[in-house]
Amino acid sequence: MTQRKELPGSSWPIRTTVWGENIHERENSIVASVYPDGLHTAIANGLSKDTGILTKTVTLQDADQGCSPAILAETDVLVWWGHKAHGELSDQAVENVVRRVWSGMGLIVLHSGHFSRVFKALMGTPCSLKWREAGERERIWVVNPSHPIAKGLPENFVLEHEEMYGEPFTIPEPLETVFLSWFQGGEAFRSGVTFQRGAGKIFYFRPGHETYPTYYDGNVQQVLRNAVRWAAPVGKLIEDICEAPNIPAHQAHEPIVERGPSLHHVGEAGYR
Amino acid sequence: MTQRKELPGSSWPIRTTVWGENIHERENSIVASVYPDGLHTAIANGLSKDTGILTKTVTLQDADQGCSPAILAETDVLVWWGHKAHGELSDQAVENVVRRVWSGMGLIVLHSGHFSRVFKALMGTPCSLKWREAGERERIWVVNPSHPIAKGLPENFVLEHEEMYGEPFTIPEPLETVFLSWFQGGEAFRSGVTFQRGAGKIFYFRPGHETYPTYYDGNVQQVLRNAVRWAAPVGKLIEDICEAPNIPAHQAHEPIVERGPSLHHVGEAGYR
Amino acid sequence: MTQRKELPGSSWPIRTTVWGENIHERENSIVASVYPDGLHTAIANGLSKDTGILTKTVTLQDADQGCSPAILAETDVLVWWGHKAHGELSDQAVENVVRRVWSGMGLIVLHSGHFSRVFKALMGTPCSLKWREAGERERIWVVNPSHPIAKGLPENFVLEHEEMYGEPFTIPEPLETVFLSWFQGGEAFRSGVTFQRGAGKIFYFRPGHETYPTYYDGNVQQVLRNAVRWAAPVGKLIEDICEAPNIPAHQAHEPIVERGPSLHHVGEAGYR
Amino acid sequence: MTQRKELPGSSWPIRTTVWGENIHERENSIVASVYPDGLHTAIANGLSKDTGILTKTVTLQDADQGCSPAILAETDVLVWWGHKAHGELSDQAVENVVRRVWSGMGLIVLHSGHFSRVFKALMGTPCSLKWREAGERERIWVVNPSHPIAKGLPENFVLEHEEMYGEPFTIPEPLETVFLSWFQGGEAFRSGVTFQRGAGKIFYFRPGHETYPTYYDGNVQQVLRNAVRWAAPVGKLIEDICEAPNIPAHQAHEPIVERGPSLHHVGEAGYR
Repeated sequence: MTQRKELPGSSWPIRTTVWGENIHERENSIVASVYPDGLHTAIANGLSKDTGILTKTVTLQDADQGCSPAILAETDVLVWWGHKAHGELSDQAVENVVRRVWSGMGLIVLHSGHFSRVFKALMGTPCSLKWREAGERERIWVVNPSHPIAKGLPENFVLEHEEMYGEPFTIPEPLETVFLSWFQGGEAFRSGVTFQRGAGKIFYFRPGHETYPTYYDGNVQQVLRNAVRWAAPVGKLIEDICEAPNIPAHQAHEPIVERGPSLHHVGEAGYR
Repeated sequence: MTQRKELPGSSWPIRTTVWGENIHERENSIVASVYPDGLHTAIANGLSKDTGILTKTVTLQDADQGCSPAILAETDVLVWWGHKAHGELSDQAVENVVRRVWSGMGLIVLHSGHFSRVFKALMGTPCSLKWREAGERERIWVVNPSHPIAKGLPENFVLEHEEMYGEPFTIPEPLETVFLSWFQGGEAFRSGVTFQRGAGKIFYFRPGHETYPTYYDGNVQQVLRNAVRWAAPVGKLIEDICEAPNIPAHQAHEPIVERGPSLHHVGEAGYR
Repeated sequence: MTQRKELPGSSWPIRTTVWGENIHERENSIVASVYPDGLHTAIANGLSKDTGILTKTVTLQDADQGCSPAILAETDVLVWWGHKAHGELSDQAVENVVRRVWSGMGLIVLHSGHFSRVFKALMGTPCSLKWREAGERERIWVVNPSHPIAKGLPENFVLEHEEMYGEPFTIPEPLETVFLSWFQGGEAFRSGVTFQRGAGKIFYFRPGHETYPTYYDGNVQQVLRNAVRWAAPVGKLIEDICEAPNIPAHQAHEPIVERGPSLHHVGEAGYR
Repeated sequence: MTQRKELPGSSWPIRTTVWGENIHERENSIVASVYPDGLHTAIANGLSKDTGILTKTVTLQDADQGCSPAILAETDVLVWWGHKAHGELSDQAVENVVRRVWSGMGLIVLHSGHFSRVFKALMGTPCSLKWREAGERERIWVVNPSHPIAKGLPENFVLEHEEMYGEPFTIPEPLETVFLSWFQGGEAFRSGVTFQRGAGKIFYFRPGHETYPTYYDGNVQQVLRNAVRWAAPVGKLIEDICEAPNIPAHQAHEPIVERGPSLHHVGEAGYR
């Protein structure tokens, strides 16, 4: 069992789990021909080119749908690719992932994962958008070239065949916008955006339709490696982040005398 | 039935529904003595001093827990006060409120509502904090004096008896921070913060413990009236904000030819 | 002399001054043929279709370069179009405008105004971008359809001939992104972004190259009218926003005793 | 000459220059007794406890006021302490620092540096606040405990004697709020806030009045070391960030034909 690294760039690798839905690649011959070992494997292979990233893959078909507390406890950054079966993810799996993000696990959500239960629960918005599957050209522009997720990239790069996603993309106003996409058919889109939820850093990255070889693209792989390094937690995870501690009056930092009417007894837990 | 106003400040009033949990004020003699008609009534009375605000109250004990689509359909801004019974709100009630916010209904969340199912679902975070019920002094500072929610307020105002809330308050980074609180016992807190979720504007305001007469305070009432005006939607609500329309290639804005392999038939709905 | 309105949507009109550089329209025959009365006049005419907006135009050739304290004192929202002569604006004119924005005057910066001294001073960044003058097609997408600045607009609209602006646009992370642009030549751009500086609200809107009839476009005019309403200050301006008042110990809100060594005498002004 | 590090946490140290005004510590006996070697030296000594940080000090009295291009060219992160002589900094020094931040140099602004010409130019706001020099108690709360700048800190820490700063602090809405301060006299303040300007990361940290031993405090030193690591640039600096390149039509990414009237010749530089 690997231990948690102390700092990105330190001698400990970033333990990265790639979650794959793993349905289309088994059931659809086109997807199977592009990703014979599954999208999750191709994504993990791209990440592994960075020796500071230690990868593992899990799928929806695994025990606990690949989202057991044991797996998440050894995950610094979770990468999520799902599409056809968002509705099959159990309440327990969603809660496990969300709670772990809140404690500090990084999360990279890919492409159709915008509609995953996990991403929607963390955003608190519909996460809807327009789409078109026409194999058109996508050009991705770097908006924030000094951002760690844009490190080593050209000013723009092209994916010759991609699915189109169009605005409005109903996410909250992002913390940072790193990439914009231009599409051949006339749309523009916020393609790389960051958020923080609890102690966890979240990056959404748009490309990655399963019928195209997007995850073999060198620039896409660079983005994902950068994103994993960016999202990795620093310091210890905050396991008790959902707690709401009662600080009794006699433990106040400044001396105060309790006064007035009260609902709670000293040291009582609050309502939830 | 009142029709929706076209613009804040226009001749149509802002239809504002105050949702009250309405338990402590019936079961606890202290709360009953402070708010004999319920907190929701006191809150609504403060709002009604603005003739541009048309108020109604609902409670957890009402049909559909006060959150029916019919009620929400005639609500421009919803004000939420709950504490003891967050866990009793049904999944359906939460979904009704969240969907309506996404479509554009404004939402004002008060005090212990930080832990309501509605607020947590919209934030995507734990919304946890520290607390102490000691009747101590709270001083609220205006951080953004030109913000519409701070209109007409002094640079700071005091609530002589309040419950303390302490940081870290595990919300997402706010769109705007309007107020900070200082507490006698040594804590500071982000007491007035804004967010947008879907088309809906959200304001969280910290004070309002049920054993103190906070909702009779003139400054608090001013904040709430300002907040209702700020949160009121402009223009039409976006009823279909959760839709993800497929834009087929022949309807693309720029002429493109469909190419490459595809999963979907023309005009097919996407996976969710 | 008109008095300041109390609220957007109230009975007082929003006093809006359109500042025009007014050089190309006099010196260049192409620009003169498109905007025979100057760009500022065309912009003001579009605004005046809203009877709640009271317009005035000033130009670089006016006394005090159109930026006198007297003019600004009667301006609720300033609209800025400049291009060729950014460097000619005096330090005093820049300071007058910046100070007035800080006090609460709204500011709408158009197109090549990204490089105006006024906008750069308020952003604190280079405000650089890529550009191409090829008369290509621009399609502007609404990203935040419930935003007041997007009111009444279609999901996207086209300007058949425009100058291209490309990313990275080196502005600070915006408070809100309202519009994105798609360009025929392959670029995407953050075309409508909001900021607050001091008490003043700022909106940057990309289109408006002087050789094209952009300011006669109905959708562009709608954006500008919306933006003026959005940027108009609520309540009184904060004239003393640059002050840093010394609050002596005996005036502290909580009783404290002055202690320890000190640099300043009681009531002394601070260093600047 | 040290070379630039490739990554925080890598084997290259972060070259950190501490800029000190160095007046009060020579002219005022109280300050001289607290900081006999100058505030800059005490600050640098605290940073040097991290062996990954390589420190140097410069002062206002140095050639080019300590802000020469040569010094900045070998600085990854600049730490700024000034108070009495903000007005003495030359236009050239301000421009040198601002340009270097835009290119990617990190900047940590301390205490009274809120009113430095450098900070105001980068914020684009008045940066005003309230103040009181009474040696009162300040308690600093961690608002974002997973932020790299809060690493290793307790939930709050106390500075027994500090100058008070009160809201409104007229900065732009921060990218992130990391710390809040509570003051004995009744104020609350946003004490640790982050920004990005161009490619440069900026952190403002409130404490540090020159008559108190703040920079010897272990927690304050920890904050500053964390901040330097956080602000250090990743990858290469962007020297040409102020350029606005003309991309002629024949170099467009998508084939377009130049059309319509134009102001500029092919390849011409734009107006500034």
